[in-house]
Amino acid sequence: MQNFSYDRLYKFTHDTLLKMGCSELHAQIGAEVLLSADLRGVDSHGVARLSGYVRLWEKGRINTSPSIKIVHETPSTAVVDGDGGLGLVVAPYAMNVAIEKASKAGTGWVSVKNSNHYGIAGYHAMIALDHDMIGISLTNASPLVSPTFSKERLLGTNPISVAIPAKEEPAFVADMATTTAANGKLEILQRKNQDAPWGWIQDKEGNPTTSANGVKEGGALLPLGGDREHGSHKGYALGAVVDIFSAVLSGANYGPWVPPFVAFLEPDPNPVGEGIGHFFGAMRVDAFRPAEEFKSHMDNWIKRFRSAKPTEGNEKVLIPGDPERELEAIRRVEGIPLLEPVVKDLMALGEKFGVSL
Amino acid sequence: MQNFSYDRLYKFTHDTLLKMGCSELHAQIGAEVLLSADLRGVDSHGVARLSGYVRLWEKGRINTSPSIKIVHETPSTAVVDGDGGLGLVVAPYAMNVAIEKASKAGTGWVSVKNSNHYGIAGYHAMIALDHDMIGISLTNASPLVSPTFSKERLLGTNPISVAIPAKEEPAFVADMATTTAANGKLEILQRKNQDAPWGWIQDKEGNPTTSANGVKEGGALLPLGGDREHGSHKGYALGAVVDIFSAVLSGANYGPWVPPFVAFLEPDPNPVGEGIGHFFGAMRVDAFRPAEEFKSHMDNWIKRFRSAKPTEGNEKVLIPGDPERELEAIRRVEGIPLLEPVVKDLMALGEKFGVSL
Repeated sequence: MQNFSYDRLYKFTHDTLLKMGCSELHAQIGAEVLLSADLRGVDSHGVARLSGYVRLWEKGRINTSPSIKIVHETPSTAVVDGDGGLGLVVAPYAMNVAIEKASKAGTGWVSVKNSNHYGIAGYHAMIALDHDMIGISLTNASPLVSPTFSKERLLGTNPISVAIPAKEEPAFVADMATTTAANGKLEILQRKNQDAPWGWIQDKEGNPTTSANGVKEGGALLPLGGDREHGSHKGYALGAVVDIFSAVLSGANYGPWVPPFVAFLEPDPNPVGEGIGHFFGAMRVDAFRPAEEFKSHMDNWIKRFRSAKPTEGNEKVLIPGDPERELEAIRRVEGIPLLEPVVKDLMALGEKFGVSL
Repeated sequence: MQNFSYDRLYKFTHDTLLKMGCSELHAQIGAEVLLSADLRGVDSHGVARLSGYVRLWEKGRINTSPSIKIVHETPSTAVVDGDGGLGLVVAPYAMNVAIEKASKAGTGWVSVKNSNHYGIAGYHAMIALDHDMIGISLTNASPLVSPTFSKERLLGTNPISVAIPAKEEPAFVADMATTTAANGKLEILQRKNQDAPWGWIQDKEGNPTTSANGVKEGGALLPLGGDREHGSHKGYALGAVVDIFSAVLSGANYGPWVPPFVAFLEPDPNPVGEGIGHFFGAMRVDAFRPAEEFKSHMDNWIKRFRSAKPTEGNEKVLIPGDPERELEAIRRVEGIPLLEPVVKDLMALGEKFGVSL
């Protein structure tokens, strides 16, 4: 494990994106979005993924000079065509369309097609906070999840993020995969050669398993809830709603047709839409009640929950977004720890592009 | 167990609501909404709850001749004041405001304060379907749920419903509490003297328990996920979002301040808002892409998921809404089965009001 400053990783990512053909603006946005994952502790979605994007680009599956545009709209909605661009830059564009719509109509809702992996959901939702708006960010993803009772993988980990502004308190920021556990957590267990808890995964026959390699070996992640008795049909329904809002509304690929993130797997030769899909929402707080009033009550909400009596062995009740915010404060100062294989991977990338880490 | 025809229970409910002082229109709407729960198999939210509404009305906590109105609006949003009315009638009013907004602005979003329990979430979301819109329905509820790491109950079972139209296939209708299991399921186990699975409830000390009486005895229902390792922080975040959209946006009571449904418990003497809160959304499908195109792809989505290879011992993969729709078809023909204590309760109610069951 080696620590790298934010600025160092930002420059490396930015320069690599430039070498891939991104514009200066897109390189800036892409680097900021990608590294927000590392800052917030979602290491699986940060700079460790950069070479994955490069491999997709090398296969011609990412367009680094996209013409991103609105292809359909009403006062409060739009469909954005990402033109095969990096999700990292398509998503903030679309979120800003939602915010602009909201500034006039009260709310804005944007469904996106023809995009690629967009980094962490929370980054995009949080763009709304500075505008005194609630932000919502959803995306579908490569199929790794089996619906309740299904042997097949039909859904991605399809995250939901909701960011809600407060006054004195830090914002409420939920950012969650609709599975029991995110794929990144499995990767950690695999590296440590540890078992996964029951309820996280099933093997390729559809039986529950604790093998952390279960998904790699043809099994699947399980929807939040784990099994029917513990409400996995709810996690499945949530993942399905994310898929439909992101892709059936926009005209992207959905369910098992979502193109894989890994470059060594080919997309379905008979797609049902274009690229992968996202969905964004922005709601002006004062479209409902005066912003100061709303934010004071959010402070009260947050304080009440944070001061709840904790169960034995637990220090306190957390507000969604607390752990990520605390980690970001540390990593901005102490740097971002990268595992040895990730460092090696980035070094190789730097050599290929003539960019120094 | 005794079966009652829908018409018989509808007339009884309608007549009882009239005796409580509801207008003819409100009695019709209230009866239809309440009984939709019985038809769809959510027995805990149907006619069995009628005497609970009556007791709240007797205590002056439900206004049966409310002046429900919009108190704030933008092109795509509104806040509705339910004037202390039955949630059963306030909710369809607010959902129709959302639909009207959507017909002009593309989407409509309505937060509601000063309301009461609104029956099943799914009924209200499904109103959107006939308009080729996606319907969303959320509500907060009396605190019965402990956030992750909390000994205290701070949230209700705060359901999420999303209804999405298809073409030839029946609509996709998710309708789920944000807890591992709904309270109604616990009541069934209590009656049968059976234990609950791990992950459903904690006791009053905040320890996991399998006693079906755990909640009654001061414990709490657990957020979807059950414990931290299985993602309960995600269920907690979802329930929190429902609470904030329903009540902090509208000016209703939130978190532990939500007034209890049971008349024998008094509301908090220092409320933070008015009544309980709901949140509704309507999105015109053709605000994103042509409705026929969207609905054809929904058919394709539904068919693909329904035909997925099932795991051993399971017949098929279900689409959200399948079980409720199938049960409704049966109960419309064969009648609605009511438990003996419910029948007795309704008889007593009938006697009090001079209404025959």
